[in-house]
Amino acid sequence: MTDGIARAWAYLSRVAEPPCPELRALVKQVGPVEAASLVRAGVDGRFGQRVEARRHIDCAAEDLEILARLGGRLVTADDDEWPLLAFRAFGGAVADRWRPQAHEPLVLWVVGPARLDEVASRAAAIVGTRASTAYGEFVAADLAAGLASRDAAVVSGGAFGIDGAAHRAALAADGLTVAVLAGGVDVPYPAGHAGLLGRVREEGLLVTEYPPGERPARHRFLTRNRLVAALAGATVVVEAGARSGAASTAAWARALGRVVCAVPGPVTSATSVGCHALLRGDAHLVTRTEDVIELIGHAGELAPDEQRPSSPLDGLADTDKRVYDALPARGARTVDEIAVAAGLPATQVLGPLTVLELGGLVVCRDGRWKLALR
Amino acid sequence: MTDGIARAWAYLSRVAEPPCPELRALVKQVGPVEAASLVRAGVDGRFGQRVEARRHIDCAAEDLEILARLGGRLVTADDDEWPLLAFRAFGGAVADRWRPQAHEPLVLWVVGPARLDEVASRAAAIVGTRASTAYGEFVAADLAAGLASRDAAVVSGGAFGIDGAAHRAALAADGLTVAVLAGGVDVPYPAGHAGLLGRVREEGLLVTEYPPGERPARHRFLTRNRLVAALAGATVVVEAGARSGAASTAAWARALGRVVCAVPGPVTSATSVGCHALLRGDAHLVTRTEDVIELIGHAGELAPDEQRPSSPLDGLADTDKRVYDALPARGARTVDEIAVAAGLPATQVLGPLTVLELGGLVVCRDGRWKLALR
Repeated sequence: MTDGIARAWAYLSRVAEPPCPELRALVKQVGPVEAASLVRAGVDGRFGQRVEARRHIDCAAEDLEILARLGGRLVTADDDEWPLLAFRAFGGAVADRWRPQAHEPLVLWVVGPARLDEVASRAAAIVGTRASTAYGEFVAADLAAGLASRDAAVVSGGAFGIDGAAHRAALAADGLTVAVLAGGVDVPYPAGHAGLLGRVREEGLLVTEYPPGERPARHRFLTRNRLVAALAGATVVVEAGARSGAASTAAWARALGRVVCAVPGPVTSATSVGCHALLRGDAHLVTRTEDVIELIGHAGELAPDEQRPSSPLDGLADTDKRVYDALPARGARTVDEIAVAAGLPATQVLGPLTVLELGGLVVCRDGRWKLALR
Repeated sequence: MTDGIARAWAYLSRVAEPPCPELRALVKQVGPVEAASLVRAGVDGRFGQRVEARRHIDCAAEDLEILARLGGRLVTADDDEWPLLAFRAFGGAVADRWRPQAHEPLVLWVVGPARLDEVASRAAAIVGTRASTAYGEFVAADLAAGLASRDAAVVSGGAFGIDGAAHRAALAADGLTVAVLAGGVDVPYPAGHAGLLGRVREEGLLVTEYPPGERPARHRFLTRNRLVAALAGATVVVEAGARSGAASTAAWARALGRVVCAVPGPVTSATSVGCHALLRGDAHLVTRTEDVIELIGHAGELAPDEQRPSSPLDGLADTDKRVYDALPARGARTVDEIAVAAGLPATQVLGPLTVLELGGLVVCRDGRWKLALR
């Protein structure tokens, strides 16, 4: 990317509040440099209104300098690193009037050693409320560490609570983690996560649509959430109140054809209300990393069945079990007594007793049967 | 019911391990007295084998005396109290080879002031593991008390853990509760629940297919569970391990066309594993009494929506919210500054500002706008 092209992209990234499908269409048609000069000169109609307030602002050079100082790069659809497969979901199908933000981003400001396209090929989003409980943070961390150990990236929004627990655990497990921000890469938000986001930048990826210096705003969080959902094969909501941003990410995941997962929690916990609402809908109930890997992983990466306690009576026929149950907890019984207790003819009791004796479950002493000591 | 008929029913109740469809068919054909003398004389074939071991035992008079001492009664299909509607589910449809117990009971031994048919017309089963946690017991008690306060009966199995918590809470709320036993009405099981079962007998109902003196056995618990499921409009599993009797009751509820519900819990709790497995299937996720009442109650008893926190921005148009977000947390901005921050033309900012001002959300001082103090 030449300096001129980079400056054009940086200018375009700021001139319209993302996402701006008209701008993307123009860039696709005439390229970024020509698009930038057209916009700078002024355009008409609805598109013109969207760029009017900022078209005279040009701090592209400064923005790129800030990005360079952080060791970052611009990533656009012209780059190999562009997560083409992940963004294919923005294919008009979901761009209905309820989802006016359902558009591919134009430019991503990216800092970190990982490659965005590779990360997106095997990633899950772990999201949830900022007002998390110890339970939610534990589960978020457990899932994130599990994903990391299975070479899957953990995408989240860098917020307090569940997001932070997920990023932190992925880092602690030497895994890849991606924080998608609702402001500039140089604006650590929340400020209390400056250190955490610094580590994500050094070991994983910081990604944002917003140019340097831009601060997050309510609508930017909602717009940002579509990228969290798009970059992950599945979105896992770990804890969410009745009204939570995580529900917005889940809605995006659904709209983009991604799998929505939710972790159940105590019904006494206000921070699980949102998860239970999702589970009443079409969300997958997940309790373990394996459940998530099965959804985002390669064919054949199936979650093993959960372990069940086993009993020595497993596999016995019903009649055998009934005869076994007819033996007293203490003491011994004759075949006739067993027949009465089991409600079976005496002739049908001997066979099962032999099966049980061979299995070491009962013993016979002087013609009377008793349970084997175990 | 004459003494002779009562004695015949009591004899028949003991002679074959319930449920015995051949015996029920015979009684339907010739009546209980004739059926009893035929069986006593000996019958052929598979049916003969089922009654062979016990046909010579006749302690009907003693059994009825024990029942009378407890103030109980026999209830059969000949009685008004027989829960005809509830038992209609045993209609052959589910009597497949996987459910050999899918038959209506022949005789019920019943003690308590409530009427079985009335109870069954508005009841939910609350069941779960004996190895319950404080969380599970709290939820079971909360649901049971809620059902009691909504005039719904609580059916359960009288066991330790979830069952006990449900019975206890229903009693404490002066509600109706039914314990379906896997042994005789005079055999309190578990022994530690003798006091609790005594209170259920005095204020609600003890119900069992088994004649006095009979002790529970493994297969009897499984057979008993079909009656728990049949007597309730919905079965709610509150806590269950990977392998729990509650899963058997849930399977019966499903087989009988009843609604299966499960309460989610922490994924870190082994006693919620069974509930989560049910929720991955077709079980309804319930968190409140209202959810259960909606399933078992009259038409129109719909659960109210869960309360959601509200915000003064609710109902504002997206542009209004975006303008609101463009105002700084502290200090004031001109219309042009707001336009740049919001990425909107200055001409499109004034309208939203007026809307926000009328809503008391922003104020204008000397041509500069700021957030209203709240």
